[in-house]
Amino acid sequence: MIQPIIGKIDFIESLRGKKATFMLALSNSKTANITGITQAGIPGMIHLTPTLDSEFVCTGEVRSLDNIAETPKGVPTPALITRAVQLLAPYGRVELLDLGLEVKPKIDYFKLHTFDIEPSQSIAKGAAIDAQEVFQKGVEFGQSYHCQDEYLILGESVPSGTTTAMATAIGLRHKVKACFSSSFKEVPNDIRENTLKLALSHIAPKDDIFAILGKVADNMLIFNAGFILGLNNQTKIVLAGGTQMASVLLIVNKILKLMGGTMETSNLALCTTKWVAEDEKSDIKTLLELLHFPINAYYTDFDFSLSSHPALKLYDQGEAKEGVGAGGALMYGFLNGISKESITKQVEFFLA
Amino acid sequence: MIQPIIGKIDFIESLRGKKATFMLALSNSKTANITGITQAGIPGMIHLTPTLDSEFVCTGEVRSLDNIAETPKGVPTPALITRAVQLLAPYGRVELLDLGLEVKPKIDYFKLHTFDIEPSQSIAKGAAIDAQEVFQKGVEFGQSYHCQDEYLILGESVPSGTTTAMATAIGLRHKVKACFSSSFKEVPNDIRENTLKLALSHIAPKDDIFAILGKVADNMLIFNAGFILGLNNQTKIVLAGGTQMASVLLIVNKILKLMGGTMETSNLALCTTKWVAEDEKSDIKTLLELLHFPINAYYTDFDFSLSSHPALKLYDQGEAKEGVGAGGALMYGFLNGISKESITKQVEFFLA
Repeated sequence: MIQPIIGKIDFIESLRGKKATFMLALSNSKTANITGITQAGIPGMIHLTPTLDSEFVCTGEVRSLDNIAETPKGVPTPALITRAVQLLAPYGRVELLDLGLEVKPKIDYFKLHTFDIEPSQSIAKGAAIDAQEVFQKGVEFGQSYHCQDEYLILGESVPSGTTTAMATAIGLRHKVKACFSSSFKEVPNDIRENTLKLALSHIAPKDDIFAILGKVADNMLIFNAGFILGLNNQTKIVLAGGTQMASVLLIVNKILKLMGGTMETSNLALCTTKWVAEDEKSDIKTLLELLHFPINAYYTDFDFSLSSHPALKLYDQGEAKEGVGAGGALMYGFLNGISKESITKQVEFFLA
Repeated sequence: MIQPIIGKIDFIESLRGKKATFMLALSNSKTANITGITQAGIPGMIHLTPTLDSEFVCTGEVRSLDNIAETPKGVPTPALITRAVQLLAPYGRVELLDLGLEVKPKIDYFKLHTFDIEPSQSIAKGAAIDAQEVFQKGVEFGQSYHCQDEYLILGESVPSGTTTAMATAIGLRHKVKACFSSSFKEVPNDIRENTLKLALSHIAPKDDIFAILGKVADNMLIFNAGFILGLNNQTKIVLAGGTQMASVLLIVNKILKLMGGTMETSNLALCTTKWVAEDEKSDIKTLLELLHFPINAYYTDFDFSLSSHPALKLYDQGEAKEGVGAGGALMYGFLNGISKESITKQVEFFLA
């Protein structure tokens, strides 16, 4: 049910039956406003996607808009999967990170961590992030964070996040353009290519790592790299995502190398969906093999083969693939005895 | 599955997956000996109901009598529901409050909190409760109580408790006679009316709040009002009950008003059954709207529509409705991934 991409199954097996805190990192980048670059949301309303996703995961309701975020082709948000698991095998708690949201989620009682971080600009024009400051905020959060459950699952909702993740990895001088996934089945290469070219054009030869990240990354990537370094292997953490979380790890890797530092990573893992792991248009394994530290990475053997719902079948055809920590949510469900059938039925129920 | 009566779903959603202490407040009032006033138990043995309910919730056995409390029509106690959830998604722990029991439950190992409180007299003759003392004991208990789980569910088993609750609310000068539920489908209005009239006749114009409560209330109502004030929003608590728990809140409300005090109530909620929430003969919403503080109140969308057991079908016809924290137990089950179907099957199994 859970398969290794890199490493052994032991880390994940040791978490079987344990409660996890599900943490969702939310951010807006104006990159998402580039026409056609993402299908993670409703055209003209894409900035609302992380807000709506977090409202739905926490409460089962979307409050900042009438309908849950759907892509133009009608691919429903992976938040449906994350919420389904919350109903079937509840997380210990859900916590949210506001890493620069246009619209705050309308939720009481759930912990919303705030850091005074603004939405970032389009990488086509230079993202204009104070990357050192955002990174530092991540480090401090990691150093002071006390996990109240046995481990942490860290997901994200950042529209256009695969594009900024690709720009980041390439900006950090990795030759990995072919390794990046997108929420589209047919990745809009012209638009992406053009955005990427514009983004990279702002990098000057003498730019240091923070200068580069400040131009081509997003707040989620930078903050979470700091967060992981701040946690310093003291808390078990599963990065719930695909190529975006791989880019977070590439930043961690680069910073460790730069500082001549090392970090224990025995408590650090990544878990994504089967749709990402088996995607022919991206290659998360190659990205992870660039890391200088050992990492356990997994995917969950879940698809919608038990469903005949046309909107869900689109996932199996390569649309959407990952997001809102869906891969980590499925992992948590499987580790707590929930079947593929139950999850499928619960997701179908949301769409009924 | 869990629906708001007043307020938003957020409080309850934030408790999803968390362990709770299930606390059961047990008390006898001689009001229950008035012929025909309650069907919460076996005629002539009604005083045993809280004892048997607590034995069954804790151990699955009724020890102080051969058969589990059934009403004359054969409506089984809601303790079956509370116990079913304990088997399917166990509470963190079960604790009992002896607020004046005729017969102590025969249980080892479970925490039974005692306060040297005697069963109260019939309100038809004046309940003769030292209300200030019982209230003070509640306050002190709340101030010193340390919840070992993430929140507290507080249920009750007090035969004739809806009658004393009604007398209390009216005695506190609310015009709410039509708002009160009873364990009967056909509320025995003559008997209740007469008991109520007698109870209220003992109140003198100059009686202060404790004098009034001492005549028309019961120990559960008075103690729990003090308990809630003593907790002072420091512990998350869900009052698991219907109109009786609403009357507890009316006492809290009156005392706060009297003292010119205020209390944060963000961690205080109520959860009852669908049978109470949809009862046409009572109106818990109107009772809760009398409060001067904000409150989140919910009901659980559970009935016995999946069962064909004739004794359980009586619930859907309006008998029994609530008690032994059934509404809060169902909430806890739902928050921990248990389905309506599983709970129904487990309750049926007890009756097989």
